[in-house]
Amino acid sequence: MNKRIGKQTVKLTQPISIISSANIVGKKEGEGPLSQYFDTIMSDATWGESSWEKAESKMQNEALSHAIQKASLTPDDIDYVLAGDLLNQCISSSFALRDLSIPFFGIYGACSTMAETISLGSMLLDGDFAKNICAVTSSHFCTAERQYRQPLEYGGQRTPTAQWTVTGSGSVVLSKNGNGPYVTHITTGKIIDMGIKDANNMGAAMAPAAADTLKAHFSDTGFEPNDYDLILTGDLGTLGKEILIDLMMHEKIDLRDNYDDCGCLIFDADTQDTHAGGSGCGCGAVTLTGYVLSLMKEQKLNNVLFMATGALLSPTSTMQGESIPSVAHAISISNNLHFGG
Amino acid sequence: MNKRIGKQTVKLTQPISIISSANIVGKKEGEGPLSQYFDTIMSDATWGESSWEKAESKMQNEALSHAIQKASLTPDDIDYVLAGDLLNQCISSSFALRDLSIPFFGIYGACSTMAETISLGSMLLDGDFAKNICAVTSSHFCTAERQYRQPLEYGGQRTPTAQWTVTGSGSVVLSKNGNGPYVTHITTGKIIDMGIKDANNMGAAMAPAAADTLKAHFSDTGFEPNDYDLILTGDLGTLGKEILIDLMMHEKIDLRDNYDDCGCLIFDADTQDTHAGGSGCGCGAVTLTGYVLSLMKEQKLNNVLFMATGALLSPTSTMQGESIPSVAHAISISNNLHFGG
Repeated sequence: MNKRIGKQTVKLTQPISIISSANIVGKKEGEGPLSQYFDTIMSDATWGESSWEKAESKMQNEALSHAIQKASLTPDDIDYVLAGDLLNQCISSSFALRDLSIPFFGIYGACSTMAETISLGSMLLDGDFAKNICAVTSSHFCTAERQYRQPLEYGGQRTPTAQWTVTGSGSVVLSKNGNGPYVTHITTGKIIDMGIKDANNMGAAMAPAAADTLKAHFSDTGFEPNDYDLILTGDLGTLGKEILIDLMMHEKIDLRDNYDDCGCLIFDADTQDTHAGGSGCGCGAVTLTGYVLSLMKEQKLNNVLFMATGALLSPTSTMQGESIPSVAHAISISNNLHFGG
Repeated sequence: MNKRIGKQTVKLTQPISIISSANIVGKKEGEGPLSQYFDTIMSDATWGESSWEKAESKMQNEALSHAIQKASLTPDDIDYVLAGDLLNQCISSSFALRDLSIPFFGIYGACSTMAETISLGSMLLDGDFAKNICAVTSSHFCTAERQYRQPLEYGGQRTPTAQWTVTGSGSVVLSKNGNGPYVTHITTGKIIDMGIKDANNMGAAMAPAAADTLKAHFSDTGFEPNDYDLILTGDLGTLGKEILIDLMMHEKIDLRDNYDDCGCLIFDADTQDTHAGGSGCGCGAVTLTGYVLSLMKEQKLNNVLFMATGALLSPTSTMQGESIPSVAHAISISNNLHFGG
């Protein structure tokens, strides 16, 4: 039986639950509006390590280990871990996982990583290849700034469209043995590139990819925006969010009632000087594992479409005058196993 | 039904065929011992593009498009493409795929990428999530040298243990509708780090990961080396190959009869000045899609264990004094659908 419904979407046939999650964030994120939803708030950016990169790795190890522990499992119970991050050659993930002895699939989806790892992990479970799978990702303001932009010491001015890379790591344990919330539908994005070349305006580059995946999701599933309590992109920021609403309006799909973006939720732009909002793999990961899953547990949210977006550029491609290819992956998460019938 | 046999291995339950493949290599690879097996040999390193990075992207686009065409399919028939490469943020893949409009999963496995993409793609097919899936990867001597080591113009001396990054891209189309060769078993590697810190000796860093996965494969499946016509790692090089043979001898598993390495096959070390042999994601990809699949078609090889190995370091981790985490993923490819019973 083909589980594919429409061109880009699959519907899972087994109950695949997010049985636990954990996260850790930096000081600034811990001072933001979502503060109460985070497990651990670091007191500084290095967390006892000799470099920011080592700190980011340690964060990913901590988020993963904590999620496994919360599920009352041990690393030995985990059949696969899917992980990735923003750093060159995804070193946050590979160094974070080297002492855990879990079969490993490395992922690169830029800021779409959390949705990509949960997509693949859920399909591997539904396909009977595993019982428990972990997904984890991270980002760190200091490692990302110096890799993508400038040395932090340079103190470069940020443009109004620039986003602030979230320091954070989030992890989930997906399992065939659980009572929800359930991953029910997965819509996988295509690479979309509308020619935006401004690496300080990622929201504008990624919004068309988000629109493309969202359109495919509604068309493939027959859902409407109101079938969800929350449609959450991560992380278009304030500008990208407005663009997505406009793009969807052209498609006669009105998102205004129940749509938000992780990059807009995680910081208070007025008081935290984050310009267009948060970004980074960690932004979606900690907003999902903190805010969203907490509200789902309390049944304040029951049906959520989580769509993480990624800008697939590099400093090299930008220097060579290239535009910014983007991608967005969407997953339906519901307290109702039979969401969508 | 759980398809898992043992801790790291799954056995597919449906016939998942490699229905076509294509590759493209650089001039040096086209002058090597495997020359006759390649579809396209480029006349220079830029292939009409303004940068080596753009050339590498074009190679990946070409390998993928050619493989789809050989299968008498169009991009619209492909449900997912899984792709990755060595460049920072995997830009070879994202730029290669942006005009093809295929749902995309980005992968990072360093030189293990070809085995990782085929592993995940085969499981997604066996799990009924798709009918046709493409896997593609690439590497390029010039893009890798300047990213990982030094500007090419610097003309740095290479150590005897250094490997030569293959310029090449290979792609396969995996399908539920085919007559083999079949992907039958998949053993997924854990991250192994034995403390090797010499970034010019990748073979020594990766051999323990290869040994770990190989041991798990034989233990999980009950196979012995002689069940295969060829056990092929990619790409340990000459030194790593010897280390793997030694490590396996300690486990009382004798590989000497039917084991080789893509890095050793692709160049003639005596005349091509490649020191310890070939490396790069493209090395395993073109050796598999060229040499191995050709010999399987002629039934000169019938049962092959293809195990690509990846060194998960970055120049940043090396500069920070870190050792080299490594991983190896193995897939059984057989002309016999019922290989292993």
